[in-house]
Parts: sequence; structure tokens; C-alpha cells
Amino acid sequence: MKYILGIDIGGTNIKAGLVHNGKVLKKITVPTHAGQDPETSLKQIKTTIGHFVNSISKIGIGIAGIIDSKEGIVRYSPNLKGWQDIPLVRILEKEFKKPVRILNDVNAILLGEWIYGAGKGYRNVFLFTLGTGVGGAAICEGKMLFGAHGFAGEFGHATINFNGPRCLCGNYGCLERYVGSRYIIELAEKKVNLQKSALSRYKELTPRIIAIEARKKDAVAKEVFEEIGQYIGIAVSNIVNLFDPEIVIISGGIARAGKVLFEPIRKTAKEYILGYKYRKIKIVPARLGDSGGILGAAYFAC
Amino acid sequence: MKYILGIDIGGTNIKAGLVHNGKVLKKITVPTHAGQDPETSLKQIKTTIGHFVNSISKIGIGIAGIIDSKEGIVRYSPNLKGWQDIPLVRILEKEFKKPVRILNDVNAILLGEWIYGAGKGYRNVFLFTLGTGVGGAAICEGKMLFGAHGFAGEFGHATINFNGPRCLCGNYGCLERYVGSRYIIELAEKKVNLQKSALSRYKELTPRIIAIEARKKDAVAKEVFEEIGQYIGIAVSNIVNLFDPEIVIISGGIARAGKVLFEPIRKTAKEYILGYKYRKIKIVPARLGDSGGILGAAYFAC
Repeated sequence: MKYILGIDIGGTNIKAGLVHNGKVLKKITVPTHAGQDPETSLKQIKTTIGHFVNSISKIGIGIAGIIDSKEGIVRYSPNLKGWQDIPLVRILEKEFKKPVRILNDVNAILLGEWIYGAGKGYRNVFLFTLGTGVGGAAICEGKMLFGAHGFAGEFGHATINFNGPRCLCGNYGCLERYVGSRYIIELAEKKVNLQKSALSRYKELTPRIIAIEARKKDAVAKEVFEEIGQYIGIAVSNIVNLFDPEIVIISGGIARAGKVLFEPIRKTAKEYILGYKYRKIKIVPARLGDSGGILGAAYFAC
Repeated sequence: MKYILGIDIGGTNIKAGLVHNGKVLKKITVPTHAGQDPETSLKQIKTTIGHFVNSISKIGIGIAGIIDSKEGIVRYSPNLKGWQDIPLVRILEKEFKKPVRILNDVNAILLGEWIYGAGKGYRNVFLFTLGTGVGGAAICEGKMLFGAHGFAGEFGHATINFNGPRCLCGNYGCLERYVGSRYIIELAEKKVNLQKSALSRYKELTPRIIAIEARKKDAVAKEVFEEIGQYIGIAVSNIVNLFDPEIVIISGGIARAGKVLFEPIRKTAKEYILGYKYRKIKIVPARLGDSGGILGAAYFAC
């Protein structure tokens, strides 16, 4: 029995899983060591594949960054130090003698959610990933949008306030600069300094902790999610006005916050989407969690 | 010989032309009378078609607003007073016994430019129209993007500054609020009050006049286009990051300003587009002028 290996390469961890019939059968996680040189993280990728190589027929890999799927080249990955124009497919196919395909990690997650998760059955789908980075990907009329160079979907650095604060990318007022994890935490910390909150009991805040406290009705945590939800709602509206999808899927850690996040998103979207009443539009959390990227990458390899 | 009738219905005028082999053979323009009731502008449309009806086999119509091409219904048109859920295709087919197809006016212009104009030969194209309103439309991998309900491409009301001034649509800091004709004029008027400028000689300013003076190196007019160019450049960058097209076409009156507008657009885009050096991306003016919408609508009818 030969399986497909799905791999999700992030700035922190490499997650890999044996996939069969849309299920992840066995999963491992190893550190990416992305802060070192490309050789070190490449070695980690090879070790990961080595684990599974005898039981697989194909390999699909999702990687953050600008990925040229057609040529099999990682053009540039902001999370992997020194990765520039790396012909990853050629390197891995030579080493393991198995067909390899690579795609952008957010495209992989969308593919997973579209085939097996929240987007199943829809023909026009947009997915946001909210984490350290903010990304996007689109299915238009039943086809994944790759664009002319395979770079489509980068919405984390869409300008939502050109007078806004500077983003790590160098531009100003990017969506990511408002709803990336570090900025959610920053916003909460600012509010905690001014108001009484259950959040002040934590040594270090995470979006997850803020979500938990918001669900417990902590006023500050709720305020944070209301504000963040508005920003995401504006981004969702821009996307809906542009792509006119049936469904927008929000993935990533904070999407698990539930109602405290989705209520302000939906409220803002209702206000900002043109011709809202003429559309059927769903805004929902992702369903597959960590497995989305692995399943999507494996599907892409088929 | 039977021709195809292409019609472009705007808030001010109805433009119609007999189309054959990608050329507009005969063109007429009549007022839309859009400020009155739907019956009045519908009568104008019918009169227009009546002019040509004996020499045509098909009718294609581009209309501003939310157009349901599949069902042939004008859902909502902000420029045509009272037009809501009007089954235009059924009405006109009943009257004229010819097949009719309708689509959004910006989609029509893009189709025209894609088949016969600046976008010829490309598979991924985005078009902006800059006028009183600001619109957008996309060709993705050789197919026009309509979206789930046929509403795709609305980028004029994308938020580029959520803290910005209120737009006529009710939201804040929309692209149109910065680069729609009336705001370009407003910006020029403000500057003319503070600085010496050739523009002060005109009784009433238009984007066309400002463009002419900018080309003649009037400092104020040039400043206006530099500022406007930056806003458009940010919008272009958001679109390129999202759709990854090979070419972005700018259509509408002010696109004729040439270098004074396109230089700041290209400069801003170079800064704001992710992985700019890995892309081949052209930002160019439309080529077909007023005929774009007529040609595209006629093509859509085929």
C-alpha cells in the first residue's frame, strides 16, 4: 500500500503526514530551524521525508512564500532564512526518486478545506489564514487561482489604511499589521494596562488565551476581538466585493475563538459588502485545523 | 448582413454601436435620463435598439451596477434611479425578438480590451475604470471572473483607509473616495487656493483639464497626479498581490494623462507589490476609449 506524503513547511515546524483517502494516518512534527541557512532546513525536510519514503508514492509540499508551482522553485520565503530561487522539486526528486509538487502553504490549506473541509461543494471560495502572518487564497469557479506567476492570493499585505503604521514588509497599514498575532497581542496588552481584566493574570498573552477569556466574557478580551473582527470584516468585504465567493473561510489559531470573533466580522461584512442582500455569503471557521495544509499538499501531488 | 449591437448604458448617456469583426461601424449616443424613473431610461434603451433593429442579429449590453448575467436581471444600478431587480433581458427579448445578453459595464470594457485592445494575448488581466465611479474586472487564466452571483470585480469600494473620509456608498476610505473624478477635482481646487497655478484660469476643473496642465508641467496639476497616482498605485498593488496578473489596464478619462499619472502609479506599485522582481507586470492605459464597452458587450452577446 502506497500513501501520499503531505508536508506543511512553516517558519517554526515542518509537519508531515501520510495521507490516504483524505485522512491523515500518521503525522510527525520536526523543527524547521528556519533561522539558520537553507541547508539546515533543507536537511530537516529531507529527514522528514526519509521517515516515510518507503511507504509513499508521491510528495506534496506547502511552503509559505512566493512559490513557483509550475517550475517547482521556491522563489522567496520570508520565513525561511536565505531561501531564494531554490529548485526544491528538482532537489527532492533527485534524492528520493518520487514525484514532488510544491505550492504556497495557504493554497495548500485552501485546497484541503475545499476538498475535505468547510469549503466542500462550493465553486467560489476564499480562505484567510490568520497567524503570525496573514495570507489568502482563492478558488474561482472550481479552479484554484494561481495567477500568472503562481503568486496569487497575497492579501495579508493589502493596504487597508495607507496612513497606518509600518508593516514588517516595509509598506504601511497592511491587513497583517492589524490582525497578525503579534498585533493582536500588542492591542490586548495596551488595553490591559488601562483596564481591569482577567488577561492581566497571564505572564504572556497569546491570541488563544485572549480568545478563551473573550468567551468567558472578559470585557477587555471581548473588546480586542471586536476591534480585530472589524479589521477582518473590512478585509472580508474587500474580498467579497472583488471575488464574489459563496463562502469565506477563516483559518488559523484565532479562528477558533468562535462567536466573539465571527459576530463582529459578520456585522462589519454586512455593512461593507455591496449588494449584500442579493448574495448568499457564508463566513465560517476552517474545519481541518493543522491537517488542512497536509491534506491539501497531498491532494496537490495527485 | 447582420451585425451585433453593442450597448454601453451609463448614468449620463447610452452609447450604442453596430459591431462587425471587432470594429464599431456606426455609433449613436442618446441621454439615459437616469435621474427619472426606470420606465424613462428603459424607453431610451428601446429607442436606441429600435434604430438598429433591422440590421442586427444579437444584442449585448453593459450596465453599471450589480448585474446578474446568468438570469439576465439588473439587480441594482446606483446610476439608474429606481432600477432594482429589472429583468432587462426578458423585457428586451420580448420586444425585439433577438437574443440579448447583459453584463456589468466594467466587465464589458475589460472584455473589449482583452479581445481587441491593450489586453490582447494575455491570460491574466485586471482592468480599472476611473471616472465618476471606480470599477474593476478580472480575467483569470483566460476566463472572465464573474463570481458566484455575477458580482465580481467591485474594487472601487475597497477600503484603502478605514480611517478615511466617508464615501457615497456609506463606507469609509474607499478607493473611489480618493480617485473618483469629483475627488480629483476637489483635491486640485484645494491646491489651487493655496498655490499659483495655470489651473486657476479655468472656471470649472475636470480631470482632463488637470491632465493637460500636468503635461504642460504646471506644478499644482503635477502634484495632483502624483498624489492620485500613489492611491491608484496602492490599489494596483493590492490587486497584483491578490490576482497576480501579467497586465493591469487603466481605463477612463484620466488614464489619458499619460506619464504624469503612470509614473507615480508604477513607482508606487514597484514599492508595494510583493516579490516585484520575480514578476513580469505591465501597467498600461486602455486602448479602445469609448468603444471598449460597446465592443466588449457585443462580444459577450456572441
